[in-house]
This record gives sequence, structure tokens and C-alpha cells, in this order.
Amino acid sequence: MAKLSISRPLPLKDVRITDDFWSAYIRLVRNVVVPYQWEALNDQIEGTEPSHAMKNFKISAGLEQGEFYGMVFQDSDVAKWLEAVGYLLETGHDAELEQLADEVIEIIAKAQHKDGYLNTYFTLKEPQGRWTNLAECHELYCAGHLIEAAVAYYNATGKVRILEVACKLADCINEVFGPGDSQIHGYDGHQEIELALVKLYQTTHDERYLRLSLYFLDERGKEPHFFEEELERRNGQVHFPQLDMVFDRTYNQAHLPVRLQMTAEGHAVRVVYMCAGMADVAAETGDMELLAACRRLWSNMISKRMYITGAIGSTAHGEAFTTDYDLPSDTAYAETCASIGLIFFAQRMLQIEAKSEYADIMEQALYNTVISGMSQDGKRFFYVNPLEVWPEAIAKNQHLNHVKFVRQGWFGCACCPPNIARLLASLGQYIYTVQENTVYANLYMGSDITLNLGGQQVDIHQESNLPWHGNVKFTIKTGAKTEFALALRIPSWCADAKLTVNGEPVALEANTRDGYVYVAREWQGTTHIEWDMPMQVRRMKGHPHVRDTIGKVALQCGPLVYCLEEADNGTGLHRIVLDPHEVPQKHFAKELLGGIQTISVPAKRIRIGHWEQKWGDQLYIADTAHEWENTTANFIPYYAWANRGQGEMTVWVKEN
Amino acid sequence: MAKLSISRPLPLKDVRITDDFWSAYIRLVRNVVVPYQWEALNDQIEGTEPSHAMKNFKISAGLEQGEFYGMVFQDSDVAKWLEAVGYLLETGHDAELEQLADEVIEIIAKAQHKDGYLNTYFTLKEPQGRWTNLAECHELYCAGHLIEAAVAYYNATGKVRILEVACKLADCINEVFGPGDSQIHGYDGHQEIELALVKLYQTTHDERYLRLSLYFLDERGKEPHFFEEELERRNGQVHFPQLDMVFDRTYNQAHLPVRLQMTAEGHAVRVVYMCAGMADVAAETGDMELLAACRRLWSNMISKRMYITGAIGSTAHGEAFTTDYDLPSDTAYAETCASIGLIFFAQRMLQIEAKSEYADIMEQALYNTVISGMSQDGKRFFYVNPLEVWPEAIAKNQHLNHVKFVRQGWFGCACCPPNIARLLASLGQYIYTVQENTVYANLYMGSDITLNLGGQQVDIHQESNLPWHGNVKFTIKTGAKTEFALALRIPSWCADAKLTVNGEPVALEANTRDGYVYVAREWQGTTHIEWDMPMQVRRMKGHPHVRDTIGKVALQCGPLVYCLEEADNGTGLHRIVLDPHEVPQKHFAKELLGGIQTISVPAKRIRIGHWEQKWGDQLYIADTAHEWENTTANFIPYYAWANRGQGEMTVWVKEN
Repeated sequence: MAKLSISRPLPLKDVRITDDFWSAYIRLVRNVVVPYQWEALNDQIEGTEPSHAMKNFKISAGLEQGEFYGMVFQDSDVAKWLEAVGYLLETGHDAELEQLADEVIEIIAKAQHKDGYLNTYFTLKEPQGRWTNLAECHELYCAGHLIEAAVAYYNATGKVRILEVACKLADCINEVFGPGDSQIHGYDGHQEIELALVKLYQTTHDERYLRLSLYFLDERGKEPHFFEEELERRNGQVHFPQLDMVFDRTYNQAHLPVRLQMTAEGHAVRVVYMCAGMADVAAETGDMELLAACRRLWSNMISKRMYITGAIGSTAHGEAFTTDYDLPSDTAYAETCASIGLIFFAQRMLQIEAKSEYADIMEQALYNTVISGMSQDGKRFFYVNPLEVWPEAIAKNQHLNHVKFVRQGWFGCACCPPNIARLLASLGQYIYTVQENTVYANLYMGSDITLNLGGQQVDIHQESNLPWHGNVKFTIKTGAKTEFALALRIPSWCADAKLTVNGEPVALEANTRDGYVYVAREWQGTTHIEWDMPMQVRRMKGHPHVRDTIGKVALQCGPLVYCLEEADNGTGLHRIVLDPHEVPQKHFAKELLGGIQTISVPAKRIRIGHWEQKWGDQLYIADTAHEWENTTANFIPYYAWANRGQGEMTVWVKEN
Repeated sequence: MAKLSISRPLPLKDVRITDDFWSAYIRLVRNVVVPYQWEALNDQIEGTEPSHAMKNFKISAGLEQGEFYGMVFQDSDVAKWLEAVGYLLETGHDAELEQLADEVIEIIAKAQHKDGYLNTYFTLKEPQGRWTNLAECHELYCAGHLIEAAVAYYNATGKVRILEVACKLADCINEVFGPGDSQIHGYDGHQEIELALVKLYQTTHDERYLRLSLYFLDERGKEPHFFEEELERRNGQVHFPQLDMVFDRTYNQAHLPVRLQMTAEGHAVRVVYMCAGMADVAAETGDMELLAACRRLWSNMISKRMYITGAIGSTAHGEAFTTDYDLPSDTAYAETCASIGLIFFAQRMLQIEAKSEYADIMEQALYNTVISGMSQDGKRFFYVNPLEVWPEAIAKNQHLNHVKFVRQGWFGCACCPPNIARLLASLGQYIYTVQENTVYANLYMGSDITLNLGGQQVDIHQESNLPWHGNVKFTIKTGAKTEFALALRIPSWCADAKLTVNGEPVALEANTRDGYVYVAREWQGTTHIEWDMPMQVRRMKGHPHVRDTIGKVALQCGPLVYCLEEADNGTGLHRIVLDPHEVPQKHFAKELLGGIQTISVPAKRIRIGHWEQKWGDQLYIADTAHEWENTTANFIPYYAWANRGQGEMTVWVKEN
């Protein structure tokens, strides 16, 4: 087996995002989100759940007194924050932020044990319990996040301090885990170390890390069952008694060896983190069996278990996948982190094989669930991203308990907010990938990149007004003649894209492969490419096996899924019925929610005024007809919901 | 305040049920259900959850060795069984059964402490814990069921042994609870003792029991909160850690004094048992404030929080009501016991005020949820009665965890099976009630009764073919001239009933009050009444505030709600759409499920064959239209579902 030839993102420092939509988000991450999260990690935000995450490190480092507080994986919040800081520093100088990060790194380094071990929960709370509860206690998960942060920070600054900490930690893990007689033959309950070790390998070129990643992947699901043996060794002690992380094997994707898994089962975030690690290892080693498993799991997720918003996880219990086509809108789990993980997985698959479906899903998850996960002021977050909300029922019906209709300032389990921050801060990595002399344009975002192709410097300037308009312009400058291909993704939401090169129309079909149109030519001087992807309002239907969407439509325009909100439509969104013959109108509402395109369409609504009289106290009436009134259904992009107080919301609307 | 003048049921021994439908059920209870449940109580049924309930009594009685096993309220299963036996003995001689019951009674009597205390859980497991955890441990609830059993058995046999046990227990409770300084100022977490004490009062005429019932009712919801104080006294020990029975005050209806409660909140069975007790006390004392609270809670339940099947309880969490119009079909709790309790409540309200709506709901709950709770062989039971079932999702989506699609042989918490048994065994009490010289025909069931009106013996023979036909014939025989009224309920499902007396048509409107038509006359010799209630298939719609039923219909014919089952319609019931213009056809299927009327109607179904090709691997498609095929939607009565293997089921079907 040999390394696969894959496409790679550009170094983040070589990508500058310039369009209005995304540069605003990145500014928000830089100016608000990361500073706010720093305050959160230091318990400086009133009225939100305390984090204690920095305090845990300081106590472990011997700099402060106190006890551990928080989730067993609290360390990872600091690591994800530091990773986001790394990306911000790579894309923009900020001496103050860098100094703060360096201080944090010193604290982390002081909290590390001599043997490389680093975990504040076990250091402070269970010093004898190291590596005794992999099923539940996230030790390798936390290590993985620290490694990711270290790689990001090293790439940004060239400073080796945190990378050394990470390597020492990875070396410690490499000592403890492995096939040797004195080693633990196990793996973590929550995947993350796998993909992190590949990053560390890619940075250090130390193959032990790659081998260890593969080891962790292949241990999972083996018989006898590691988590059960481990439970026995610790005399049945459990950390999360309300969940069954040991015997419910699908929860941890430990029900089968990963290579044999056919369907996405259990905790959704774990599945996609695992798959990202599998794809990484497959790419680095050429392990085609592993790649085949990735393709199968991808296909199952995408074609049978994903919400239209790019969200995954149909049930709160175990934050998990359920079964094919079970996609309830109101009880959805649809965790922000799961869609972020789905993007990680999609990006890795896309690097391995340039098929537009991977980028399509990346875009769908990003524009809908991921940015829905954060309020427009950058200070409040959704963990769960439902597709239908009725606040009254949520308040009273406990099976909707996990759903919030107001974003929260922070969480006891705060995985999502820093995950959004690190994804948005590294967004530049998702626009282009390069493989030999092909540049893939995967996501359309206004940006400037500089790269070297065939020894020539190439500058690509992209102008984009997504998600509001689909006309994208590329200006490509190169000095001497250079042969390369620019491969433009044809988004699934666009049926009739048009391409011109220096004003000359280019036929798409002949140049299209797997959803990318390849503009392969000799480039010289300045080339203008106009890539026009008309955005129609599309009436999406769900597969007829999906019970929750049947008889309903969801409006989509470009990558954005739309929704009805109470603020624009009053209460009782379930009484609105769309007419398939009415043509939706788009408007750009500059003043609304930071400037959004809205969609309105004439519709019918079941009258409630008259009905109240007719119904009196009756809950069920025979042989009666609905009384209708005309109304206008006013849609906003899903990502923008819940920014105007509490109210109902629905993505899927009846059509008749 | 003075006792209200109310209508009363006839003694059970004076009512003989003769029609095919119900006499089959009662035979089943006598020949199968009660013997089967005896085996269950004695752990003689293989492959079901053990009960241990009789064993607990035997150990407490000193007759066997061992430890307590089961729920803290396990005793009540024996009591409910004994109550059912009482009703069976009142309506039919059975020396063997009576001997068995007498033996059980001796065991129970031996398990009673000298001071009257009787509860096997506390006797065996927490002898020091008596009366320390009323919030959770069901001591008074179990006592209430024992009292109900005692009254039934005494009424049936005239034997005082168990009545004495019950009185001694009630006296013990009366010592322990009350306003005195040395008494506990408390009440039980699960209502039941309240209505039981009224029965004991009605049987013994000892007013202390009535006063104690009122005391329990009025203590509930007082400040300071009894359950919190009690929790503090026992140093925070909890019995059911997964539920919050102390601080979630609505769970036990302890959030407000009962007289101030406006809406049905919390555990549904508790609400209706409480309401039945409130209505009892109101009737016996003339407490109009209490009665007003009953009317309010009734109205809230019936007009905003009840499923069309007469089921209540919208969520599994806390087995509880949620909020107005929140009636999800798939996650419904809809406990069999809750509908039985609703019948208890309805019957008491009906006795206080002869309004047909009470009997309508009684009938709706009985014909649908209650008998759905038992398999046709009498040996398997539903605890939860959902209105929509998709087995695949139930198997994988934990928020449907409580729903079963196959009836169970027994339950760890086995409240429902003996509750069905005691209700069906006492069904004769629900047909007629009598108030002075008015005989109310509340439920239509073929039956013979003998009663004394104005000193004259009156025999009423009722011929009924319900639920299949609505033509009911009464033959009334009396010797000397007697004046009385026969009040016939006009069911809500019947718009155009016709009445003849000895062949002469009687105008309904002039003689109708509150849904009853009064045939008031001088009766002599034999009078023939024909009461023709045509049964049309009715297309029921839910109130437009109910999200789960909008755009859908449920078929009802007479009192029966119908459903689609996979056995008759294949999978994918959500793809079937009814046409409002098609006329449903009724058929009587003699061989099917014990003989049932089915309903069929031409319908459309979204094609899946073609779609599969069109959809390929896509989960969402734009601007596509459904492809339809013609089909026939085949309905069976809801009560008969899940008797032909596993499969989908739905009550509400799309209409378009």
C-alpha cells in the first residue's frame, strides 16, 4: 500500500477571504467569538454555566489552588480555543493574542507530567485512574484536541513549544497503547485522537503517529470487547451512569470493526470524527479497504440519515443516528459539532476523490447548521439545531427537552462554541484544494490566493456574492505561461451554470467530470473567468420514505435552506399550506438580520378565528372542512432563525 | 353543604350483559384473564417479567421465607386482581374462584400488622421507613387498592373478613394522618386512597373515612410543601432517582391546591384518579367548589389534551400531560390505566350531572384505548397505546422507547393488566344509572336488569349490536302502572337518531336535555322501544391547533376509531392519502380478528417503485412531483390492531 495522490488545501496564510458574507463571520470570530470564549473559559461571563477550563489547567500546573470542575473532557475546550487562535494568527498578525496564547501554552506545558501525560481531570481528580476508563473519560479525545491545537499554532507561528508538548503527549500515548504485551490494547470512547495523530504525522513526519492512528482505528470493535474488559478491571465503576457507554456498543461505533461497518450508527459526532480519521489514514497509507468503508458510511449518512440542513443525529438519546429515513424535525438532535465533523469528513473525502457531492454536503452543512449554531452577535450558541420548533411544547414536553429555541451563552458541555470558532477561523482551507496541476474551487467565497504551480506564481482573485447571488468572477494572474486546470464545482443547487473564459463561452458538458468542470489551458497574464450559477428558489421534497417531510416542501435558494419563523408569519406555522403553482419572490432585506435575502410566496392558512367558534370546546369534529384564508408565507434563511426573540419555526411546510 | 342528589349504578348482581361483543370480553376476563393474571402474580408464566406479588404477601404473612421483590406498589396488583374477582363473583357463582380468593384474603390478613398497617414493601424491606416517603412509595395508593378490593369482595360475597382488614388499615391511616399535632399532615404521591375511602364510607357509613378523603384532597398542594419537608426529614433519600417526584410538583398534582387547579398537569393516571376522588367527595358532601374544579379539569382534559381514542398523557416522561393541543401520535404515552381512570372520573361526573358528554368520553375510552390494551386472547397487554407506529424507528430511536408494537405478557410495573380486568369485570355498572324515578341508559350494551322503581319491579331487556350497528331495542316490563323516565343518551357520533315507543315515533328535540332524550311516561305491561342510532363512517378532523392531526383525518364509525395497519395495507402508511370525495365502504369480516367491521376507501399512494429509480441515492430533490398510484385504504377498528404480528399502524391519515 502506498500513499494516495490527493489534493491538499493551501496553507491558511496564503488564503485571504474577502467577500462580505464570510469576512464578516471571520471578523466576528476574531473580534468577538474568540475573546468571548476566552472569557467563558475563565468564568468571566455572568449568567452562563461556568467553564473552569483554564482554572483546571492552572491548578494542574501548580499555579493555583483548587479542585477540578467540569466535564471530564473540559480540557478540550481550551485546546479548541487555542486551535482557533492558531488559525487567526496564521491569517492575521495579532501580537496581543499571540502573547495570550503563549501564556496559555506555558500553563498547559506546566500541567504536563514528566512522562508526557496531560489531562487535568485525571491529574486533579483521579490520579490513580489514568487510562482505566477509555470508554467514558475522553483522555485520548482531549489529547487529540491538544495535538490539533499544537499543529495549528505551530503552523501559524513556527513556535515549537506547544508542538513539543503535543509530541511528548503522543509519545506517552504511543508507549501506553499498542500491540505489545505490556501495552493497553484499546481505544478511546470518543474518536478524535485518530485524525489528530495524522495531523501530527503530517507535521513531524514521524511515522509512529500514523501507525498509532491506524492501530486505534483497527482496535475498535474487536472481540473480546475492550470496554467490557476495561469495565471489569475497574470493578464496574461508571462515570456517566445515565448513558450506557460500555454495553451499547453502537454508541461508540464499537459494535463492529470499522472496516466492516455498513451504516452510520450511534453518537453522530463520533461517527464523523472517526470517518475523518479513517479517510486520513487511507489517504496516507493507500488502505483501500478503509477507503471503501469511508465511502459506505458516507453514502449511508448522506443518502438516508441527513437532514436537509446538513445536520445529522436524529435522536437526543446518545446524540445518535437512528435508522434509515428516520428524520423527525422537532425531536432532531442535529448537533452543531456533528455538522462540523461532517465537514471534516467531507473535506478529506474530497481531497481523495474530487467529486462535487463531498463539497455540496460541506456547503450544505456550513451554510445551514454550522452558522445556525451561533447568534449574529457571536455570543450565543445552539448545540441542537431542530428543523421545527413549537416553544410551548418544548417547555412542557420532556421528549423535546434537548431542544432550545433561544441560543445559550455557554454550556456545561461546551463542545460546540469553540468548534464553530475553529472551523470559521480555518475556513480558508475549504475554498480550494490543489493536486499537481489542478486547482479545485470547492466552495465559492470571495478570496485571494497565491500559489505556485509548475514553478510559476499564480494569483487567483475570486469575487463572490454568495449566498445571495451565484455569479462568481475569477481573475487569474500568472507571469510566464503555465499549464494547469482550474476545476470549478457545479453545485447541486444549480442546474444551468454558464462559464466564460475571457468572455468566450465554454461548453460545460464535455469538460465536466464528477460534478467539476475543468478549465484546462495554458494560462498567461490575466485571465477573466465568469462563472454564473443562477440561483432559483427550489422547492425541495424529501425522499418518500421520510415520514416527516412527506406532503411538505422546504425552500432552498443556492446553498441556503429557508424557514418560516413566527416573527414573520405569526403563530400556528403548521396551518400554512403552500400552493405548488405560486412563484416565490426573492427580496433582499438590507436591514434585516444583518442583511438577508427573504422569500415570500402567496399561501393559504387554515383560519383560526372562525374555527374557534365552530369548534367551541370540541377537539375533534366530523365531516367538516377547513376554512382558508389567503396569506403570504415569509421565509428567511434557516441560519438566521432565533435572532428575534422566541417563537415557532419550521423548515418543512405543507404543500397542496 | 349537603350530599348531592346523584344517579347511582345498579348493584352489579342485578345487571347481566348479554350482547355478543361485551359478553365475549367478560367471558374472556372470567375464563382467561383472571386465571392468567393469577399465574402472573404467582410467577408461573414463563418468559415474562416476574411479579412476586403473592410471594411478597406470603413472606409478610410469615408463611414463606424470602425477600421482597418488585415495585414499591407491587401489592396493588394483588388487590386489583382481588377486586376483579369480587366483580366476577357478584355476577356469577364460582366456588373454586371464591375459595381461592378466600385463601388470598387469609394471606393478606396475616400480612397485616396488629396496628392495622399493611404493606409488604415496608414490612419486608424498610420496616423503619413506614410513612416516611409518601411522595414516592405509594403506601396510601396500595391501601386504596386494598380497600377497593375489600368493598368489591364484600359486596359480592357478604363476607366481612377482607372488609375488616380494610377498615383496620383505614383506621390505622386515620390515626396517622390528619390535622392533629402528632399526625402527619400529608398525602400520597399517587392518588387512589381518596376515591377508595369514599367507597369504604359508602359501604360502612363511617364518616371518618369521608372526612379523611377530603383531608387528603385538601392537603395536596399546600405550602409549605409536604414532599419537600418529608424529603428533608429522610435526609434526601430518594426511591426513584430517575424521576423527580418531589420538586417537580406538577408530577403529583401538588403544584396548587386541587381547588385552584385549572389545567390537567403531570402524571395522567394520578390526575384522573384524583379527579374521581374529588367528584366523589363533592357528591357526598355537596362541596360545590370541589365540583367546579372537577368541571374545569374535565373540560381542559377533554377539549384540549385528549387523543381521539380517549387516551390521555402526551409524554412518556412522567407519564404526563404536556400542554394544550400537544398530542403527538407516535410519541404518545396514552396509558391504558389513564383511560380507565378517565372512565372512573367520567362516570362520577355523569352521576352528578346527566350530561351525555361524560358518557361519550367513557365510551370513547372504553371502545378504543381500554380494549386496545389487551390482546384478543386476553394474555398480552399494552401499557402505552400510540396512534402511530413505525416499528423500525421504535427499535432504534430511543425517544420512542416506551412504545411497544407487540403486546407484552406482563410488566415490571404491571398496573395496566389487572386494571383492565377489574374494569371489564364491573362493566355492568356503567350501562345504567338511576336517580329517583329516572333510569339513564348511558352505554348501549345488550343486557338484562331488574330494578325497583316506586315500589314496582321493572325489568329492562336491552338488545344491542354495538359497536357494529346502532339499532338498540329495549323491552320494558312492569307489573302495575309505574311512572318513571327512561333517559337515552344520544351519542355524539350520531346525528339523526330515531325513537319509537311501541312503534310510535317520538320527537326527540322536545324531550332532549344535555344529550339525553327522556321517555317519561306511565309504564305498564310490556313496552317496546326502538332506539335507532345510524352509524355513518365519520371523517374526523382534529382542532386546527393540533399539529399532529392537521391535514389528516381519522375514520370513526359509531364509538370505534379506525386505523390503518400494515397487515392490510403494506408498509409506508404515511404515503397513503385519502380523497375527501370518496365514500368509505363498510364490510363485516366475520373471520377477521374475532369478527370486525372493516372500512375500505379508494385512496392514492405515493409510488415507491418508480421513485426509487428517480431518487437514486438522493435524499432531497428539487421541483419534483409525487407519482401516485391508486390503492384502497383498508381500515380496522383501532382496538384490534397488533393482533397479526408486527407492523406499522396509523390512526390519522392524510387527506387531500
